[in-house]
Amino acid sequence: MALIGDKEYFKGIGEIKYEGKESDNPMAFKFYNSDQVVAGKTMNEHFKFAMAYWHTLCGTGGDPFGPGTKNFPWITANDPIKAAKDKADAAFEFITKMGFDYYCFHDFDLVDEAATLAESEKRVQKTVEYLKQKQEASGVKLLWGTANCFSNPRYMNGAASNPNFDVVAHAGAQVKIALDATIALGGENYVFWGGREGYMSLLNTNMKLEQDNIGRFLNMAKDYARSQGFNGTFFIEPKPMEPSKHQYDFDAATSINSIREYGLENDFKLNIEVNHATLAQHTFQHELQVAANAGMLGSVDANRGDYQNGWDTDQFPNNVLETAEAMLVLLKSGGLQGGGINFDAKTRRNSTDLEDIFLAHIGGADTFARALLVADAVIQKSPYEDLLGKRYASFDSGKGADFVKGNLSLTDLSDYAHSKNEPEQISGKQELFENIINQYI
Amino acid sequence: MALIGDKEYFKGIGEIKYEGKESDNPMAFKFYNSDQVVAGKTMNEHFKFAMAYWHTLCGTGGDPFGPGTKNFPWITANDPIKAAKDKADAAFEFITKMGFDYYCFHDFDLVDEAATLAESEKRVQKTVEYLKQKQEASGVKLLWGTANCFSNPRYMNGAASNPNFDVVAHAGAQVKIALDATIALGGENYVFWGGREGYMSLLNTNMKLEQDNIGRFLNMAKDYARSQGFNGTFFIEPKPMEPSKHQYDFDAATSINSIREYGLENDFKLNIEVNHATLAQHTFQHELQVAANAGMLGSVDANRGDYQNGWDTDQFPNNVLETAEAMLVLLKSGGLQGGGINFDAKTRRNSTDLEDIFLAHIGGADTFARALLVADAVIQKSPYEDLLGKRYASFDSGKGADFVKGNLSLTDLSDYAHSKNEPEQISGKQELFENIINQYI
Amino acid sequence: MALIGDKEYFKGIGEIKYEGKESDNPMAFKFYNSDQVVAGKTMNEHFKFAMAYWHTLCGTGGDPFGPGTKNFPWITANDPIKAAKDKADAAFEFITKMGFDYYCFHDFDLVDEAATLAESEKRVQKTVEYLKQKQEASGVKLLWGTANCFSNPRYMNGAASNPNFDVVAHAGAQVKIALDATIALGGENYVFWGGREGYMSLLNTNMKLEQDNIGRFLNMAKDYARSQGFNGTFFIEPKPMEPSKHQYDFDAATSINSIREYGLENDFKLNIEVNHATLAQHTFQHELQVAANAGMLGSVDANRGDYQNGWDTDQFPNNVLETAEAMLVLLKSGGLQGGGINFDAKTRRNSTDLEDIFLAHIGGADTFARALLVADAVIQKSPYEDLLGKRYASFDSGKGADFVKGNLSLTDLSDYAHSKNEPEQISGKQELFENIINQYI
Amino acid sequence: MALIGDKEYFKGIGEIKYEGKESDNPMAFKFYNSDQVVAGKTMNEHFKFAMAYWHTLCGTGGDPFGPGTKNFPWITANDPIKAAKDKADAAFEFITKMGFDYYCFHDFDLVDEAATLAESEKRVQKTVEYLKQKQEASGVKLLWGTANCFSNPRYMNGAASNPNFDVVAHAGAQVKIALDATIALGGENYVFWGGREGYMSLLNTNMKLEQDNIGRFLNMAKDYARSQGFNGTFFIEPKPMEPSKHQYDFDAATSINSIREYGLENDFKLNIEVNHATLAQHTFQHELQVAANAGMLGSVDANRGDYQNGWDTDQFPNNVLETAEAMLVLLKSGGLQGGGINFDAKTRRNSTDLEDIFLAHIGGADTFARALLVADAVIQKSPYEDLLGKRYASFDSGKGADFVKGNLSLTDLSDYAHSKNEPEQISGKQELFENIINQYI
Ligand SMILES: [Co+2]
Ligand SMILES: [Co+2]
Ligand SMILES: [Co+2]
Ligand SMILES: [Co+2]
Ligand SMILES: [Co+2]
Ligand SMILES: [Co+2]
Ligand SMILES: [Co+2]
Ligand SMILES: [Co+2]
Repeated sequence: MALIGDKEYFKGIGEIKYEGKESDNPMAFKFYNSDQVVAGKTMNEHFKFAMAYWHTLCGTGGDPFGPGTKNFPWITANDPIKAAKDKADAAFEFITKMGFDYYCFHDFDLVDEAATLAESEKRVQKTVEYLKQKQEASGVKLLWGTANCFSNPRYMNGAASNPNFDVVAHAGAQVKIALDATIALGGENYVFWGGREGYMSLLNTNMKLEQDNIGRFLNMAKDYARSQGFNGTFFIEPKPMEPSKHQYDFDAATSINSIREYGLENDFKLNIEVNHATLAQHTFQHELQVAANAGMLGSVDANRGDYQNGWDTDQFPNNVLETAEAMLVLLKSGGLQGGGINFDAKTRRNSTDLEDIFLAHIGGADTFARALLVADAVIQKSPYEDLLGKRYASFDSGKGADFVKGNLSLTDLSDYAHSKNEPEQISGKQELFENIINQYI
Repeated sequence: MALIGDKEYFKGIGEIKYEGKESDNPMAFKFYNSDQVVAGKTMNEHFKFAMAYWHTLCGTGGDPFGPGTKNFPWITANDPIKAAKDKADAAFEFITKMGFDYYCFHDFDLVDEAATLAESEKRVQKTVEYLKQKQEASGVKLLWGTANCFSNPRYMNGAASNPNFDVVAHAGAQVKIALDATIALGGENYVFWGGREGYMSLLNTNMKLEQDNIGRFLNMAKDYARSQGFNGTFFIEPKPMEPSKHQYDFDAATSINSIREYGLENDFKLNIEVNHATLAQHTFQHELQVAANAGMLGSVDANRGDYQNGWDTDQFPNNVLETAEAMLVLLKSGGLQGGGINFDAKTRRNSTDLEDIFLAHIGGADTFARALLVADAVIQKSPYEDLLGKRYASFDSGKGADFVKGNLSLTDLSDYAHSKNEPEQISGKQELFENIINQYI
Repeated sequence: MALIGDKEYFKGIGEIKYEGKESDNPMAFKFYNSDQVVAGKTMNEHFKFAMAYWHTLCGTGGDPFGPGTKNFPWITANDPIKAAKDKADAAFEFITKMGFDYYCFHDFDLVDEAATLAESEKRVQKTVEYLKQKQEASGVKLLWGTANCFSNPRYMNGAASNPNFDVVAHAGAQVKIALDATIALGGENYVFWGGREGYMSLLNTNMKLEQDNIGRFLNMAKDYARSQGFNGTFFIEPKPMEPSKHQYDFDAATSINSIREYGLENDFKLNIEVNHATLAQHTFQHELQVAANAGMLGSVDANRGDYQNGWDTDQFPNNVLETAEAMLVLLKSGGLQGGGINFDAKTRRNSTDLEDIFLAHIGGADTFARALLVADAVIQKSPYEDLLGKRYASFDSGKGADFVKGNLSLTDLSDYAHSKNEPEQISGKQELFENIINQYI
Repeated sequence: MALIGDKEYFKGIGEIKYEGKESDNPMAFKFYNSDQVVAGKTMNEHFKFAMAYWHTLCGTGGDPFGPGTKNFPWITANDPIKAAKDKADAAFEFITKMGFDYYCFHDFDLVDEAATLAESEKRVQKTVEYLKQKQEASGVKLLWGTANCFSNPRYMNGAASNPNFDVVAHAGAQVKIALDATIALGGENYVFWGGREGYMSLLNTNMKLEQDNIGRFLNMAKDYARSQGFNGTFFIEPKPMEPSKHQYDFDAATSINSIREYGLENDFKLNIEVNHATLAQHTFQHELQVAANAGMLGSVDANRGDYQNGWDTDQFPNNVLETAEAMLVLLKSGGLQGGGINFDAKTRRNSTDLEDIFLAHIGGADTFARALLVADAVIQKSPYEDLLGKRYASFDSGKGADFVKGNLSLTDLSDYAHSKNEPEQISGKQELFENIINQYI
């Protein structure tokens, strides 16, 4: 049920309901039916859809060529705590009207940063108190928290990777506050996105020292959180570039390498963002698969990019085909480990009606829901799994199985090959696989 | 001294000499002076320039839109062994006229593949015998060998990652032959480039099984080679895509992750190709640095790409600025570990004069030589190193040094930060660093 | 009805039928129902689906890293005319089994080029005679012909843009033969794709002279064809690069500029290829719209690219969302002017079963058919057109209408603006538009 | 001589002098020697280097992930006119200390926009009065003016292309003010950059109407300026995307097409930006050549991009090789027509010292100066021009010359080709051309 504060911010918009595919109501879900069971879990449980505090409540539409366009009615109070509470009211009104169960935040999304660390900490704590009440009243939960260690000018040369130790320490203090807030709110996970952990120029950079410092920093943060009773998962969110020329957590494979190098593999998984995948020249489904193969598919930021634009456009998902291929990976790998689907997406700078925020989230949720139904149907009803299994059947028995068990030497392989004729030509049948997916859309 | 076979293939072209920057002779080196000492080693020792057998002797200029254009006079004999010897004669004439000390090959660059593995093995062995004589007569050495497990149609679905075990085994047999040939020729290293180890579509692919199979395969190959007395280094050559939609060894970081996951870190390093770096959205210098940081900077394939074209254009290096930044990384990280600079580059399809091959290699060698001189001067004469050291000086003593030693907790960081004011703003001075490099070009 | 020659090449495959969305038969159309009327025309008339002779009959799967993989049974005869007839038999068997009405060719797709122009001309003429019979027997028609002036090594420096006049003349002779063949076969259009009309390096290129020469050449070809009674349309097919570093017909806007500069706007339109659009950093729908705005939307090459790969992957269409947005442009601009939908797409190198060619074309045709149905429904049933009309309503009357009529000066605009308050903020409502499209998929 | 206002903003920095290549002074020019004659003109005349008001005076370093970092001491006054004068003082101090002769501005770079058009106009007029005095006192001139019709939220849907006529009119009023200011200051040119003249989504866009409206708008602006006595050139500055998903003035060829379609070819030329060229997948030199071929090479914005980042990084030029190839085009096409080299570049967000602005401009000017010297030497001393002339010699006489004169028909070409043997193979010699350029760096 919608939780409305002192003031209703989204007047005229009620709770968004599932009305099915045939509905012409733009303010209804056509595919996302939260309690519908798919592949043994409700859609709800599969997705754990989360609202992103920053885009939805704080993102007024500024870009490098112009300031914000959106006059959010919850950003008016001069007193920072009053403003934080107004924003929280708007947040929970939105989340509950959407019928979502989760939200995500950076520390200074919740409340404006103050002039000193001590004062900032107090502000965060007060806001956390208020959010706790809102959570209790609504049942909404915190999917993950994080600290914004990239916007403030002090981080212009990096946070944990800063050449100046004083900045590293400041980032440490900020992360501590954010961890405390996350724990206090029962946050299920905690995210690190290294927006300025990378370089603008390799010429003025000691990359090895910077990366080692990040490793030390993450271990400290993890140790602290564990000491405070945090049992959730930590996520690294890979991104190849922007704002940095190069970000150290370039993509899933790079981040997994770092996680292992830092000795963090028991505590850290990945938060895969669609737009970051394509900026790194990967498909979304590729990044999911890489993470899943390493047992690190933790969470998803669901914002698509533009295939012709080279920056983070943060658009809401609308491509069912692409998302269906991603949901195939998700279903086959056992789903997200700890995380959910966070709409790290923003309405376009020129989408200035408040209702546009609803329309965008509805479209995004429906895209994922429909994609999940497609993927489930492909697995359950089509010959897909069977075709795929047969493609690799040579490793199920005989010499192939011996190979997989590690029982063959190169000489064994060679002897076997010399004893056989040229291998049979076997079509990869990609077009058939593609047609099968489309049949179920 | 030039080693010419029964027939001189590059008539009218003598040994290429160093004539210095002021020379107008297009057939002379202007910067590459093999015995000149830079930073404690001769240019020769820094670079170990190698000719790539495939492009230089076999690459007749075909592309997806047309067949080869180049009528190489050493490709005329019908008898495969005679043809192989002619090609070897041309190879060694070219290498010695260029004044290079090294070459690199794939198995079936040396001699055409036969209808059976047994017959192919015989052909390779006979050619190896001939190459041994040429090596002895000239002093030219083998930088690395490799097996072409991507051209033959049997590898259309991959080699070690093939869904059909029979093909995996065939690749094993082929790698064994190539390893034997490399060892017989005193090859200093052995390379794996996984041209079709990846996928065309994730839909028909079991990525986890395929990657695990590659891990098993590489271990088998390594064990075999070690058992045969091979002491050299194995290299993985990363490339993000092409011919596959996605190659598993996407970039340096991805490959390092795999090397560690397969347990190969004591035997494998990386062969970084410039064009593959930029296809993966990295600079060449970035990939060198990533490899160096992991102690895996083994060797270099020196072919540049085109910044506006999305495939491997394999052009000869000509960008002194870019290469100078790369040589900075090289000098500062102690140079290549085992490998050298292999010109994995081809003259353009419409560069059909035989002398063009010389012009191209001269331009490439001069680019690297000049870049090395620039990098050395930057290190020795400019304030570069000093500026860089000062940028990170906060980690040399005090709390910063404690941090680097791992002696601080997140609470320590936080306490320190709370005790300080806002950190001082320190310019990154990127433009100054850039100007310094240009001053020495 | 299937037209089968002396030998049936696609045994076991009959005519592909429309069975509707619920069919599980992979060898049936699920959406393409040739006689079904959509927006006043049959699907047939909308699309004029054409088979591409080169990929379907001649493309054996070679790429820069390996030779062909496909053993086409119609490529076996030693006699070139016999081989050409076999190929034609296979072509017409395929086209008629698919139920398509059209095909497209390059001159030397039909029959192998000979050693002299005179002999090549004879071969083409003989093959044309045979094709005429096949056309008559089947009712299949020629959508367009073209000359391959990019594969032969003589064109390595360009055809009409070649620095050597002798090559320009040779291209002229070849185009004349191809025009004669196209006319003889009743071809409805003629295409120019300038694969090597561009440059590998600007350094050795006189761009102005080369482009002017192309302009002269196209005028000569047009004049000749008109003098021979050709009434069809000429198409330029834009592509930004590959095989050249830069192609002069970079994209639709660039090609339109050239067409106008050469004075060819009454005779030439564009053939838009999906993959070429995305290589030029445009969407397919963008390129269609640009062409339509200039009255030059002539024809379509329907092969998609890979969003992460930077070359022409020539894949069959499978993205209904993207294609639906393209069909919106098509329907709203009055359809293709003279041309059709040519499957300039190839099965993957590892799709080696003959049936894969059918599966691929079925998937492609269904993608377009479904997209057309979606676009028609959006126009007919949704508020899309109404929303769009309202967005621009300010130009329908009053000062806005005066502006459109050209009746206002800058001072008028200024006076009007000074007289008004700040303009009202009006949301672009992109997310709503996107949701509407998805509702009809 | 430096023109310093009431307050010296760049204390400790005097006039930047030419000290030659051997100088170790980072605050001196090493190549830019303003009065040195190259190819018949002083460097000064070739380049007309201009400071960009927006980056240098107003750009405090904000990006999509954080606010500005730079505390410019000239941005402190509360009174807008006082602030504008302070800024002007800083501007002219900087320009004169650099020894530049020109500057460029957007209207609201000069002074903050007010709440109404009338008040904004007054502010601009007052600032223009002050600038006039500064120009007179220093001899510095205005290279071009322009109106910022993209930052204000009212332009979120475009300016001249806005779906709402009221916004179009507002843009008209603003352009009128900017034209008046430019004329009052003796501006030599006027620029249009259509930052939001394009679309975010084709779905909600009537592209034809929007482009036609732009055409009308540009004609109105041109007519007005001419009526006010403006004799300078108008420039269109192409850019493919950002902030829009697609900008209508995608690249040089697209813009030329529009200029011709709107009938503006006698008044408009192009302002080519390096970074915009590479974002459009072109080289800088390509875009210059396209503009020169159309007689529209007007001016240059000299900010390079990053080859691995997909947005406008606006970095100062530092690549001598790339710039030398561009200067070859410039020298051979007769130089810039009316415009100059405007440093539309910004110091990095983390380059926060005031001296960094000087270092950056010094590096940029030296890069262009050195490149000009290289290009001149290549033309004067090397075989470059001779080689290029010979490459196209077949069009200088005989049938080739007849072809160029337009005296041949396709049948003539064909007859000629039939009478000849296969054309001779002639190497393009790209590597030789590349080596020649490098020899002169
Ligand atoms: Co994200
Ligand atoms: Co993002
Ligand atoms: Co290589
Ligand atoms: Co390569
Ligand atoms: Co095509
Ligand atoms: Co194509
Ligand atoms: Co600009
Ligand atoms: Co720009």
